Amino acid sequence: MKNSIQFFLLAALMTGGLCSVRSQSGVIEDFKPSSVNQPGKEYPQVNSEGRVRVQISAPGANKVQLDIGAVKYDLLKDENGVWIGESAPQDEGFHYYQLNIDGASVPDPGSLYFYGASRWGSGIEIPAEDQDFYALKNVPHGQVREHIYFSETNNNMRRCFVYTPAGYDRDTENRYPVLYLQHGGGEDETGWSNQGRAGLIMDNLIAEGKAKPFIIVMDNGTWRMPERNRTAPRGERPAGPWPPEGWADGFMKTLLEDIIPMIDASYRTLADPQHRAMAGLSMGGMQTRVITLAHPEVFSYVGMFSGGSISMEDIEKAPGFKENVRLVFISYGSRELENPRRGFGGDPKENTDELEAAGINTHFYVSPQTAHEWQSWRRSLYQFAQLLFKN
Amino acid sequence: MKNSIQFFLLAALMTGGLCSVRSQSGVIEDFKPSSVNQPGKEYPQVNSEGRVRVQISAPGANKVQLDIGAVKYDLLKDENGVWIGESAPQDEGFHYYQLNIDGASVPDPGSLYFYGASRWGSGIEIPAEDQDFYALKNVPHGQVREHIYFSETNNNMRRCFVYTPAGYDRDTENRYPVLYLQHGGGEDETGWSNQGRAGLIMDNLIAEGKAKPFIIVMDNGTWRMPERNRTAPRGERPAGPWPPEGWADGFMKTLLEDIIPMIDASYRTLADPQHRAMAGLSMGGMQTRVITLAHPEVFSYVGMFSGGSISMEDIEKAPGFKENVRLVFISYGSRELENPRRGFGGDPKENTDELEAAGINTHFYVSPQTAHEWQSWRRSLYQFAQLLFKN
Repeated sequence: MKNSIQFFLLAALMTGGLCSVRSQSGVIEDFKPSSVNQPGKEYPQVNSEGRVRVQISAPGANKVQLDIGAVKYDLLKDENGVWIGESAPQDEGFHYYQLNIDGASVPDPGSLYFYGASRWGSGIEIPAEDQDFYALKNVPHGQVREHIYFSETNNNMRRCFVYTPAGYDRDTENRYPVLYLQHGGGEDETGWSNQGRAGLIMDNLIAEGKAKPFIIVMDNGTWRMPERNRTAPRGERPAGPWPPEGWADGFMKTLLEDIIPMIDASYRTLADPQHRAMAGLSMGGMQTRVITLAHPEVFSYVGMFSGGSISMEDIEKAPGFKENVRLVFISYGSRELENPRRGFGGDPKENTDELEAAGINTHFYVSPQTAHEWQSWRRSLYQFAQLLFKN
Repeated sequence: MKNSIQFFLLAALMTGGLCSVRSQSGVIEDFKPSSVNQPGKEYPQVNSEGRVRVQISAPGANKVQLDIGAVKYDLLKDENGVWIGESAPQDEGFHYYQLNIDGASVPDPGSLYFYGASRWGSGIEIPAEDQDFYALKNVPHGQVREHIYFSETNNNMRRCFVYTPAGYDRDTENRYPVLYLQHGGGEDETGWSNQGRAGLIMDNLIAEGKAKPFIIVMDNGTWRMPERNRTAPRGERPAGPWPPEGWADGFMKTLLEDIIPMIDASYRTLADPQHRAMAGLSMGGMQTRVITLAHPEVFSYVGMFSGGSISMEDIEKAPGFKENVRLVFISYGSRELENPRRGFGGDPKENTDELEAAGINTHFYVSPQTAHEWQSWRRSLYQFAQLLFKN
């Protein structure tokens, strides 16, 4: 008896004083509300294994599922008509998910909403070992500004978000470098500052003296397939190379002719190529590759997060790139490299080594134990930002 | 036959060339996607009567309802498992709504989401005759900035949104008056710039020369009942006067000791009472009443939208208020006056007349054909902003 009590106390201490009980199903019962729940909402919850537990009242429903990580988990109904259930353990970091109620895919009314997978929908945070770098802390904070402007090239009103570092409004003689930072496919200009936590990552880095203060511009890079490529049946890729030639031209024109001049006119920027970077995740990385190779007279720092890489062959076809580029940063989640997606421009590590051997300042970063998801990209920004505008 | 064709053509012309057909159920078939749908989403839709039609695929569901304006409308299932149906005509402007699927209350996956009714949930726009004043136009735009700061009085990090008018960053010698603008109960600091369209209302007013440029601060005024009032059973009001004495003290302290000094230190404000206004809707109006009566040395312009009024009796108990106040603006939606809610401080029109008779610059505005909803408050801001900082 005494031994059992001692064991219980020890177990309680080892789990930080919480009473962790592994249920019959093998699930550890130390669930806590997700940090991105709506105010006052108890569910969804996450446990120390990274399992996501959801709960929803649907007394009349026949079947309710949690849809996360491309797997659907059946929930169970209690006597009050409340459905509850949990997923397998998820990777650390942020994940999109949804509920399915009798065939209807809907957001979970307990979570905050984020734009991704071409919809505003639920998101959840699995606490990460390194979450301190994107935590909200009592440090000087920059601002994220909603900036509405008229685009001449598109003849419409557009919106971007602009991060200005702490002190921007006070030190009115200072001018700042600029990073143009792009989201992925099915995402939009809200992604980097919401689920990407770009502002908090920069605030913390700057407060610790690890990054130079710079402006970040987050615009909408969603592209339309050129007309000639729209002939493939819905859901199928057109014949020929992928992505098709010219696919990035629309956003490139908007960026070069509208966005950059507007930013340089509206903010105290250092408006030269030595103080201008472009980076993006997934589709945004592929756009970064096309645009920076085509315009080395505009950008000197290049970041591609889970979005391909740059080969020496690419560079040889891009006059001025090798001479002007100051950083090529390539990153992936480790799980992406274990299970390679369709590669764009060959093996990213081999390509990066090749660039380094040719004397280009190159960095290759692998986010541990993460896939094609935001935790990889938060970490990529954290690494990339520390290298920017320093050489 | 000729007459029918002529009539049809006439009808088509009268409805702007659209082919409006009244279905057997009496619903006019000229539905269009709501202006606040998610990108690419066809539903929800609105017709010229102001009916809301929703559609959702839920093949396994037994009952699906549209829940809007405190009424639940049953949807009908088609042979593909898609549920569809519409509401009775709604008032012009913005409304919160949700879907109910077999007893689960969830957001509509087709709409954008807004914080209100203590949740992030669906919203819809019924096109309004006067919608031009809050439309997105090609005029100079101000910015809405997410501003994170540390609150000494609450010992935590807080967030507000700050609207800076067009030209704020360019005309660095200019200093600006400030309006502190509060949301209602169950809403938060996002309400005025999202569904309230405060930024667009100001951009349009300033572009037309109808309002002076000023800064707007939108913070979170959600209040906790003082401890002594928490004894009432859940859902019941405590005994005594409502709202209970002291209920606004928490936010008043935060506003006076944290927010205003932080804003005056961070922005180029005119930091005197003659250039400081406070206004709010519903609960925010009630807070405005308490705070401005207690602190006429801080604010000179007062706006209460659907949130009570100020009587001469109030003013007689508030030393300095009558001498210092430059504007008392009281507004309601017309439907609120038809069906009066619990009044705070007596009849608002009578109170306003009384103030005017006593020589106070007073305005009473009634929003036509709207209730306790955002269209009343958009219109109220539109009227109020034109009067601010002009006397």
